Amino acid sequence: MNYPNGIKKDFINIKTYGNRGMNLEEDLNDSNKFYLNSNIASIYKKPTPITINKVDYKSRKNAVIKEAHFIVPSTTDYNGIYKGKYIDFEAKETKSLTSFPLSNIHSHQIEHLKRIFNMGGIGFIIVRFTRLNKTYLLFIEDLLKFINDNFRASIPLSYFNDKGIIIKEGLNPRLDYLKIIDNYIEGR
Amino acid sequence: MNYPNGIKKDFINIKTYGNRGMNLEEDLNDSNKFYLNSNIASIYKKPTPITINKVDYKSRKNAVIKEAHFIVPSTTDYNGIYKGKYIDFEAKETKSLTSFPLSNIHSHQIEHLKRIFNMGGIGFIIVRFTRLNKTYLLFIEDLLKFINDNFRASIPLSYFNDKGIIIKEGLNPRLDYLKIIDNYIEGR
Repeated sequence: MNYPNGIKKDFINIKTYGNRGMNLEEDLNDSNKFYLNSNIASIYKKPTPITINKVDYKSRKNAVIKEAHFIVPSTTDYNGIYKGKYIDFEAKETKSLTSFPLSNIHSHQIEHLKRIFNMGGIGFIIVRFTRLNKTYLLFIEDLLKFINDNFRASIPLSYFNDKGIIIKEGLNPRLDYLKIIDNYIEGR
Repeated sequence: MNYPNGIKKDFINIKTYGNRGMNLEEDLNDSNKFYLNSNIASIYKKPTPITINKVDYKSRKNAVIKEAHFIVPSTTDYNGIYKGKYIDFEAKETKSLTSFPLSNIHSHQIEHLKRIFNMGGIGFIIVRFTRLNKTYLLFIEDLLKFINDNFRASIPLSYFNDKGIIIKEGLNPRLDYLKIIDNYIEGR
């Protein structure tokens, strides 16, 4: 969304690769590419959901969308398969130093993750506190527990420190979040 | 893609509901909605992948995409979870009376389904011969077998009759393709 086209995005990726300053989405896409190329997992970010109003069919191959609108997603951004298990998650950044506002996640996305859990899949959220430079994974069970037990509009950092798991940053993969899933599968 | 906006799409769905003439995508979306509402499975069609070039930010809520392009999808259109299993498939219609042209499916989509199979997921294609009014499910194993054993650019109908499984049409769900997955899981 921030980049006008694929070429420029690649250029920016090359420039910033290995530096701090990549955002969570880029880190996850890089990590998922690593998992895919290493035959470890097949996990993708879904395209941005839109409704298309006007299309210019200059030629069959070169259709240009002239008017479209963003729509509220029905599901989460990421899903796929790892060790035969269905994986599903949403990823968000926050600039807050103290808590993660629940308004950042649509209620039907939480409902979706709950359903995935009930159906035997693995659901979670990944939250990065950008100004603390910390990225947490919080399983849907623990997210639901917080929502059920509290009437707060945001999850305090202390809850992430208590129930969440820090995702360590590395070179390849940038964010080895599947390591956390390994422990989770073993523990079940 | 055929409908200017969500409201009109719903209107059209109501109008045609229960009639012949719904296309494969609509039948599958209806079936997936039924599976979801009945707590049977969570399977969604992914949004159309596009790159966005120009966005008018009139207001934060009312951003209008002014220029975007369709891009070749990296994966298949549908994925989700059923009975704890990862499900992944592509759906296509053909007007041919005799065969399904393989050019209808991108080679990287076939690679993707192969990878899903190797990772323990369930991958397949759904092909509707619109003029025969027949819809088949063909598992990726059998699709790969055809590609490996043949040098043909299209899969003859006889192969679908031999290795594919007819998906029966009903009212709710319109296409009960998960019934075929039941037998498949039992047989493995």
